[in-house]
Amino acid sequence: MHTKNTNPISFMDCEKEGLYKAIFSRRDVRSQFITREIPDNILAKILKAAHHAPSVGYSQPWDFILIKDNSTRLLVKNSFIRENEKSISLLQEDNDRQKLYLRLKLEGILDSALNICVTYDPTRFGPFVLGRTSIPETGVYSVCCAIQNLWLAARVEGIGIGWISILSISDLKKILSLPDHVLPVAYLCVGYVSQFYSNPDLENAGWLERMALREVIHYEKWKGPLNDSWKDIGKEADNLE
Amino acid sequence: MHTKNTNPISFMDCEKEGLYKAIFSRRDVRSQFITREIPDNILAKILKAAHHAPSVGYSQPWDFILIKDNSTRLLVKNSFIRENEKSISLLQEDNDRQKLYLRLKLEGILDSALNICVTYDPTRFGPFVLGRTSIPETGVYSVCCAIQNLWLAARVEGIGIGWISILSISDLKKILSLPDHVLPVAYLCVGYVSQFYSNPDLENAGWLERMALREVIHYEKWKGPLNDSWKDIGKEADNLE
Repeated sequence: MHTKNTNPISFMDCEKEGLYKAIFSRRDVRSQFITREIPDNILAKILKAAHHAPSVGYSQPWDFILIKDNSTRLLVKNSFIRENEKSISLLQEDNDRQKLYLRLKLEGILDSALNICVTYDPTRFGPFVLGRTSIPETGVYSVCCAIQNLWLAARVEGIGIGWISILSISDLKKILSLPDHVLPVAYLCVGYVSQFYSNPDLENAGWLERMALREVIHYEKWKGPLNDSWKDIGKEADNLE
Repeated sequence: MHTKNTNPISFMDCEKEGLYKAIFSRRDVRSQFITREIPDNILAKILKAAHHAPSVGYSQPWDFILIKDNSTRLLVKNSFIRENEKSISLLQEDNDRQKLYLRLKLEGILDSALNICVTYDPTRFGPFVLGRTSIPETGVYSVCCAIQNLWLAARVEGIGIGWISILSISDLKKILSLPDHVLPVAYLCVGYVSQFYSNPDLENAGWLERMALREVIHYEKWKGPLNDSWKDIGKEADNLE
């Protein structure tokens, strides 16, 4: 238990490629779900991947609520419908955008094999959580890292995930009987899919484009320009195939 | 641009293994940094991986500030020292824990090849960000997903990352000249390492243990028990090799 065995540092080329392929081909899936159960051992594998995320002070503050029950899903879907109406009305002064928005499929709550709600419990191993005293938000940040692990593991298994954020937190807490102190962080639709698109749905729909990486890279400080100690890393990255 | 070419769904075994190996062998590194520069093309690769994270409404609200300058690092280190003092004093009634805490190395700000501050810009592509209207926090959650991608990509390249959270947000904003609306989410120490331990530092130090997965899995609702429609997924996961 207190040993410090070390892991081999190096990855074989195909192992490296696997990680990058997962990252670049992962999609936020809404409409390609097929009816096929996820085997228990595969579901266990992707949850284990999530559980091995980094967490502040090793607090592991995540929980995973697995949801198949249709009556629960319908309540969540109704929350989506109410919240989506609000969202649509925010676009009432921008007709083109509203029209485009209305064409988008934004959830797969009922069509996916499984829903997973990932939550944050700030009391776990507390009240003193190592490394969380200066920036309490690092607790919920840990949960997000777990979600990304889950998403990537699902991708290599051919399973799509859609993160539904057009929901009311208080609805979710009520529907899933969460205690007051537990925060729902993500509501995920999870299931095998017929295909993964090459590009994000919102890019395909013409909603937004991917930014050039050089636009989000700064040197030494905010908007810090290139100087003699730096090559243009952003340009380098944008030129990678 | 509006094409919908599809990606092949399946991953070869070694590609799958690569993703899981990255996830399970990733560590939060504090003390194994070696003096070796990160080549520009490798740095570009891991930043590109971060940039391909999911983001709410495709808002891509992240920025990456690359920091080598020692005068900047010293200011950050001083912020760490001040915040760490506060943290130590919180443990004054728990002597054993405080003693253990004092033995831990908690940052590698000066010993790592590079520091990266990852920030969140809520104004990007706003004010209407698709999917962020009901739960505004999903913006910062996207940045955390990018951080996890960065961390995993670094791992397959043999590069360690340590997330330093014992820092003051207002210090960081001042040191890096961040505009008021931009939030520092993570301050990362990044560099090649001599080794990756098999277990997390805090496990090696006897601070905490990894929880069994079955403790964080619930069925249909919070603390929802197993029933006829569910196998014991947590047990299944805990039994995976």
